[in-house]
Amino acid sequence: MSKVSIPKGMRDFSPQVMAKRNYIFDTIRKSFQLYGFEQIETPTMENRETLTGKYGDEGDSLIFNVLQRGDKLSKALTNTELKAAERENFEDVTFFNRNVSNLADMALRYDLTVPFARYVVQHQNEIAFPFKRYQIQPVWRADRPQKGRYREFYQCDADIIGSESLLNEVELVKLFDEVLSNLGLKSFSIKLNNRKILSGIAEVIGRPEMIIPITVAIDKLDKIGLERVNEELTQRGLTVEELEKIQPLFKIEGSNDEKLAQLAEFLKDSEIGLKGIEETQFILHTINSIGLNTANLEVDVTLARGLDYYTGAIFEVVSNEVKMGSICGGGRYADLTGIFGLKNMSGVGISFGADRIYDVMEELNLFLESSNAVTQVLFINFGEKESAYCMKVLQNLRAKGIRTELYPDAAKMKKQMKYANDKNIPFVVMVGEDEMNSGQLSLKNMESGEQSKVSVEELIDSMV
Amino acid sequence: MSKVSIPKGMRDFSPQVMAKRNYIFDTIRKSFQLYGFEQIETPTMENRETLTGKYGDEGDSLIFNVLQRGDKLSKALTNTELKAAERENFEDVTFFNRNVSNLADMALRYDLTVPFARYVVQHQNEIAFPFKRYQIQPVWRADRPQKGRYREFYQCDADIIGSESLLNEVELVKLFDEVLSNLGLKSFSIKLNNRKILSGIAEVIGRPEMIIPITVAIDKLDKIGLERVNEELTQRGLTVEELEKIQPLFKIEGSNDEKLAQLAEFLKDSEIGLKGIEETQFILHTINSIGLNTANLEVDVTLARGLDYYTGAIFEVVSNEVKMGSICGGGRYADLTGIFGLKNMSGVGISFGADRIYDVMEELNLFLESSNAVTQVLFINFGEKESAYCMKVLQNLRAKGIRTELYPDAAKMKKQMKYANDKNIPFVVMVGEDEMNSGQLSLKNMESGEQSKVSVEELIDSMV
Repeated sequence: MSKVSIPKGMRDFSPQVMAKRNYIFDTIRKSFQLYGFEQIETPTMENRETLTGKYGDEGDSLIFNVLQRGDKLSKALTNTELKAAERENFEDVTFFNRNVSNLADMALRYDLTVPFARYVVQHQNEIAFPFKRYQIQPVWRADRPQKGRYREFYQCDADIIGSESLLNEVELVKLFDEVLSNLGLKSFSIKLNNRKILSGIAEVIGRPEMIIPITVAIDKLDKIGLERVNEELTQRGLTVEELEKIQPLFKIEGSNDEKLAQLAEFLKDSEIGLKGIEETQFILHTINSIGLNTANLEVDVTLARGLDYYTGAIFEVVSNEVKMGSICGGGRYADLTGIFGLKNMSGVGISFGADRIYDVMEELNLFLESSNAVTQVLFINFGEKESAYCMKVLQNLRAKGIRTELYPDAAKMKKQMKYANDKNIPFVVMVGEDEMNSGQLSLKNMESGEQSKVSVEELIDSMV
Repeated sequence: MSKVSIPKGMRDFSPQVMAKRNYIFDTIRKSFQLYGFEQIETPTMENRETLTGKYGDEGDSLIFNVLQRGDKLSKALTNTELKAAERENFEDVTFFNRNVSNLADMALRYDLTVPFARYVVQHQNEIAFPFKRYQIQPVWRADRPQKGRYREFYQCDADIIGSESLLNEVELVKLFDEVLSNLGLKSFSIKLNNRKILSGIAEVIGRPEMIIPITVAIDKLDKIGLERVNEELTQRGLTVEELEKIQPLFKIEGSNDEKLAQLAEFLKDSEIGLKGIEETQFILHTINSIGLNTANLEVDVTLARGLDYYTGAIFEVVSNEVKMGSICGGGRYADLTGIFGLKNMSGVGISFGADRIYDVMEELNLFLESSNAVTQVLFINFGEKESAYCMKVLQNLRAKGIRTELYPDAAKMKKQMKYANDKNIPFVVMVGEDEMNSGQLSLKNMESGEQSKVSVEELIDSMV
């Protein structure tokens, strides 16, 4: 007997789980379309050089590589042999990377952003800019699997590329609110920051190169408290004077407008910092004038995701009802396609984390009982003559869009009823000799147990 | 500048193509659900041993393998080195396969059937049998790319496992008819054969082991004519006497019932052959009693697909309007899960070839102009004040489900109109000073060029 399992970090999705996942994807897709985004898909495999060097060293090490095939593999193996023989002449990493380049020509998509950038550059002459695209596809990362972290998972991304207008940011904030409200979330916060504000802070302190460690430390304020944040900043090399300068930042509080006013005071000598505040104010005020359904929009200067690539607005969405990391994120990147040679293409995008949204919805019991994917009526099979009769009735029901099936075997009644139960089919129809003669079918409501006689027309009317 | 391309045999899908593909997938999905099939998804990557040895040697060589990672890769490379050193002791293929097993732990899904079998065995205790599952996911094959053949393509499969009833075959024939009719195909044939009939033919001739070469030769009758088929059979080792015996088969003609009657005469001494005829008759007669929408159901004894695994009915669907290979296929396999240790699970399944169906529909111009994916109204951006006004109107339209967008930048009118044109947006709304004062928006029909003034309410009413 072969081993029957799937690779670690990978998942099978049962019909029950698929129905819930599709509900999330359909809701996201519908809103993306409502906002004018168009769908694209890119291949699962990209050329290795398209992906490598785009995600940092750690990211690179998480990329799944695809082995060469046929003659090229034979040749690669021979080369590998050569390289191995030369092994002592190389540091391990070089040896390793050279062999991988040698053995693998393609790699699996690590995210949707880099393939999107590649797509835009490759198809720039066919695209109507600004290009509002969405993409819902799986990505793969050889991360250590753990609760809520998988090696294959879907990303649901919407990006606008080729427009610097902040109205795009406004639209994306609205989109977060729209999708998550439609999914039934009652309390969630969209956190808003701006890379320029963070740059301004590092500039004001006089340590622009320290932007990332400073932000990482600030980010921990809630968790570890002021004292330990200051300790960490000292450890990271801030002088007493620099530490003094940063303190007002930790006291910023109040409404979004109050926070921004205090921040403007703090950043008054930083041009870039003030630019970040201006951008944030525009987004905030425009959103205020049109309103949100459910979301709480909150300026959060400690928000520091994606500092490697974001250049303007930074978004993160968290549920206020379920303790979990961010369920969505996004931001603006001034030069998304530069890596592939197309300069000056500013883009802004967001991503919905379908798996985490699923977990939040499951915990809050937000999935509806009814599903479009479930059979509505099962016909019990009493034998050849009866099933021939039922097949015709089936046909009439399906013509009206009623999801219907006939149990394929004339099995014991108990087994057929169990099947209806297991599959959550709400109605069962029984057609025996009497029913065929009278044309009055026996209909059983599986929930109430109630049984009645109905004509085919009545059956159809009760279902549509 | 990095190389901007995708691997050969792979494809990007533009918004225009995606809209058409989704139309096909949605139509298939809806019919699958109408017939009581439930969706599952399996991971892109399976353990290598799950896939290898299931598709024959040629199939095996087309599987994409995924390279080990991290320490395991380092170790594998060292082992590869050892194996390479020992190379002279192995035949090439052994050397090759051992190194692949060593270097690659996972492989990409080659079809949906083997992962489905693995799924059934792994989750047998959670499944309500007979299990009617559908699955729409991409598969990967390292085939030589050519027109209409890709290295990544979607399969759309529906299978019933755990029931021997021929009503399942009937349902699947109906499903072919339903889906392809709904897609707008006007003339197509569902070809029906049975592996047992083919076994019977080989038995009657006295060469049961020759079933495949005999069938392959028969299959060419239409293309190369009787004389050359007989030549080929002689070359393949049939004696003059055996060749004589097979001749009546080549004269079979007429309606389905007439063909089956002649075939019954030919197979009168073969128990298995007569069983195949009986099964085919049942399917045919049941279908005749309920009728088909569009399809022509045709018994075809030359149909010989999947002889390696099918044990009963064999299906193939061809368009009669467009010259192309089969657009769908399927059949019954008596023991689908035996390879994974679960015996006596008979299954029957069909597969829709989305790419070929796409090509047929494109050639026949069957894709509708309108699409749910396209923006219905574009608001022109005349500046900050105007766009702030428009954002609120946008909101009202979207609340009614109208797909709407605002051009994000106050660009030149011509550029914004070109955007609407390129994206096939049917209506454009212009809001300037006058419109804001009067509340009467300027609406332009992009097709007719007609322009009118409408209130927001009138705009909404005209769109929904």
